[in-house]
Amino acid sequence: MDTALLIDHVRLTPILIADPPLLNTQGVHQPYTPRLIVEVVTRGGVTGVGETYGDSAYLELAGPLAEALPGRPVTDVNGLFALAEQVCGGPPAPGPAPGPGHRAAPGRAPAAVPAPAPAPAPGGGVDAGGLRGVRTAAKLRLSVVSGFEVACLDALGKSLGLPVHALLGGKVRDTVDYSAYLFYRWDAHPGGGERDDWGAALDPAGVVAQARRLVAEHGFRSFKLKGGVFEPDREIAAVHALAEAFPGRPLRLDPNGAWSVETSLYVAERLAGVLEYLEDPASGVERMAEVAAGSDVPLATNMCVTTFPEIAPAFARGAVQVVLSDHHYWGGLHRTRELAAVCRAFGVGLSMHSNTHLGVSLAAMTHVAATVPDLGHACDSHYPWQTEDVITTRHVFRDGRIAVTDTPGLGVELDRDRLAALHRRWLDDDGTLRDRDDAAAMRKADPAWVAPAVPRW
Amino acid sequence: MDTALLIDHVRLTPILIADPPLLNTQGVHQPYTPRLIVEVVTRGGVTGVGETYGDSAYLELAGPLAEALPGRPVTDVNGLFALAEQVCGGPPAPGPAPGPGHRAAPGRAPAAVPAPAPAPAPGGGVDAGGLRGVRTAAKLRLSVVSGFEVACLDALGKSLGLPVHALLGGKVRDTVDYSAYLFYRWDAHPGGGERDDWGAALDPAGVVAQARRLVAEHGFRSFKLKGGVFEPDREIAAVHALAEAFPGRPLRLDPNGAWSVETSLYVAERLAGVLEYLEDPASGVERMAEVAAGSDVPLATNMCVTTFPEIAPAFARGAVQVVLSDHHYWGGLHRTRELAAVCRAFGVGLSMHSNTHLGVSLAAMTHVAATVPDLGHACDSHYPWQTEDVITTRHVFRDGRIAVTDTPGLGVELDRDRLAALHRRWLDDDGTLRDRDDAAAMRKADPAWVAPAVPRW
Repeated sequence: MDTALLIDHVRLTPILIADPPLLNTQGVHQPYTPRLIVEVVTRGGVTGVGETYGDSAYLELAGPLAEALPGRPVTDVNGLFALAEQVCGGPPAPGPAPGPGHRAAPGRAPAAVPAPAPAPAPGGGVDAGGLRGVRTAAKLRLSVVSGFEVACLDALGKSLGLPVHALLGGKVRDTVDYSAYLFYRWDAHPGGGERDDWGAALDPAGVVAQARRLVAEHGFRSFKLKGGVFEPDREIAAVHALAEAFPGRPLRLDPNGAWSVETSLYVAERLAGVLEYLEDPASGVERMAEVAAGSDVPLATNMCVTTFPEIAPAFARGAVQVVLSDHHYWGGLHRTRELAAVCRAFGVGLSMHSNTHLGVSLAAMTHVAATVPDLGHACDSHYPWQTEDVITTRHVFRDGRIAVTDTPGLGVELDRDRLAALHRRWLDDDGTLRDRDDAAAMRKADPAWVAPAVPRW
Repeated sequence: MDTALLIDHVRLTPILIADPPLLNTQGVHQPYTPRLIVEVVTRGGVTGVGETYGDSAYLELAGPLAEALPGRPVTDVNGLFALAEQVCGGPPAPGPAPGPGHRAAPGRAPAAVPAPAPAPAPGGGVDAGGLRGVRTAAKLRLSVVSGFEVACLDALGKSLGLPVHALLGGKVRDTVDYSAYLFYRWDAHPGGGERDDWGAALDPAGVVAQARRLVAEHGFRSFKLKGGVFEPDREIAAVHALAEAFPGRPLRLDPNGAWSVETSLYVAERLAGVLEYLEDPASGVERMAEVAAGSDVPLATNMCVTTFPEIAPAFARGAVQVVLSDHHYWGGLHRTRELAAVCRAFGVGLSMHSNTHLGVSLAAMTHVAATVPDLGHACDSHYPWQTEDVITTRHVFRDGRIAVTDTPGLGVELDRDRLAALHRRWLDDDGTLRDRDDAAAMRKADPAWVAPAVPRW
């Protein structure tokens, strides 16, 4: 293989990026949130870039992986998983749940060796900041690998003159549809920080006004409201207000698992025929399955199915009808395509989840989404809320869509001055913001706040 | 994108290749069997090669697809499926079975639209010649697409200087393990044709002798016996003889669905602890599920799960513990990786099926197998039985393994003289051999023969 495709070195740049005071059931977004920018530099002098979560737990894993990469080809993205298991420490990636008829032949190699199911991290199955579903060492490692995989694909694409989508078998659409991501929010962070001109949105009128501005600026044609913030009747009213303001447009509500089964069914009944889907109304596969059994409203998740081992039990129970893929969780763009294949084989829909992210990840999301034939729903993206970025030319939504670029690699270039400035902010932080903690941010306004136990309502 | 990667033209070359008188439950292999060689030539002057089934039903679909390709980039393999649906005629690809909790929200886009289940082709669910599982227009089309996909990947790899495995994310092993494919067979074809020096194998001693020679020549370390030819006790005796001759080696028996549930359980009981897995003992998911429920011997299949829509019901029933992938059936190398991901997520093992094929397909099998992390079983291959080939340098098994090449593309080159000669044989045939029909071949020896109904025993 051409030695120009061998990795020469890897640069890791943790940054803090401005984030508005967006509310969720755990608290409020910090004024700044950590991200990690991964740069893979080939011996041919090409730099590929990736982006992932930047909390310290991720940084700890990223360091050893970055050191292990030099000398390996950027084409070798399948090998990143075993490499990460070797060098990052922690338990091996959990295997699948045993198949329904699973058995090993006596005295022979077993048909498949199911590894132990993932154990929840200390502090419970839901992490404090990101509402990212089960948090295990293996899943943290996959999120780290995703940043490296995307950087390798970017470097490979730039080296070959091919867009990343072509490295995944080619795009099947020229644009990718995104939804407007609506939040209850405050006017400003209680403890200070960047301030924007969006103002507060704390009632149906505020939510509709926010939606109208997002439509005016980006052309979105579907809407997701982050819920779990106020009592359910108030959020039902907001969705009804959206339905009235945007008749016929797909609408979603996502309380991040804050509701009981009874409350979930109560909301589903009131929003039947209005919602495209209800996202994670209750926490865990058991409760989700009960809600699914009691309602015709499709249920989506980015919390109870965020790893491959969680798929089989959830699908067997009929707990979810749409999986919100997230290439960070699932281990990169190839794994996202594999998730799409699993969903397709089982008649489960696919959409795409988003957490706070920059233009590198939006490019990656768009490339992989462009290659999945049956992406039946607009993807989520926080991107309009991120006024800072590390790329030279920001992505532009037209009619709520991002055009799929044929520029080599991801089609983005790092703005090194901006990157350095955001890294400086990370360096200057005393450590309080380097791990996203929405409950801690909420305590700036309400010193007695603790992240609510679920079900909250 | 570089115009050198655009497809200039496609060459289709149907051929007839020599095949020994190998027996199966339907009859005997014809003296010659049809294959199709697909060549995709880029504007940059690079030729990529693929191989697939060559029966007339496949050729009819391949023609329009070949005509539709010029001007498209060889990178666009994801787009081949929709293109084939457009130009080849026939019904759209069947969708998945509806998920357990599937539903569409009233008034909204459905989460996923399940298409009708595949209908069996006229003449029943099992085709007459290849024992290839359900035969539908969609599956025929996928088999045709696979030949084009592999040719595109070969052309792309050659153009970029990258091996095909690198286009699939990189190899995770340097060799791929194959099993010895044992057959009951005659000394010679009853109606004439190429003759080899293997002699007949019609009893345990003959099967063991055949295995010893395959081991001596190729180093195989696991064994599969094609069964369903003789009454089950005779085949049980052959497997016991193999176990005695090759202690501790993985053994498989494949009667191609010829047995009833009762017979399958009878055989499984007698071969428990001896078999690595039992392959398609009975026909159809229902019978396979009954066998699986009554035995601890893992069941493998390349008959009841050969398309994505067949996965969910089979897995839900626990009908199979190992799926034998076949990149021809499943639509190419990317789809094979997707199948592997589905199996991984559900704790179902993966191995690889083979039908009569040449060195182009063996290269393709090896590349994709090299990228799948959890290929827990040696792959099947008929290759040692094929003395003719269309490549300049035949593949060599060492210790039963094929080394994964890093040569650009598949790493094989067409021998144009051989290709022309085998095509000449196809042209000269009066049509009787252009569609593989093992029952017709059997009638040369036994004029009263009809392909047995299942269960045969």
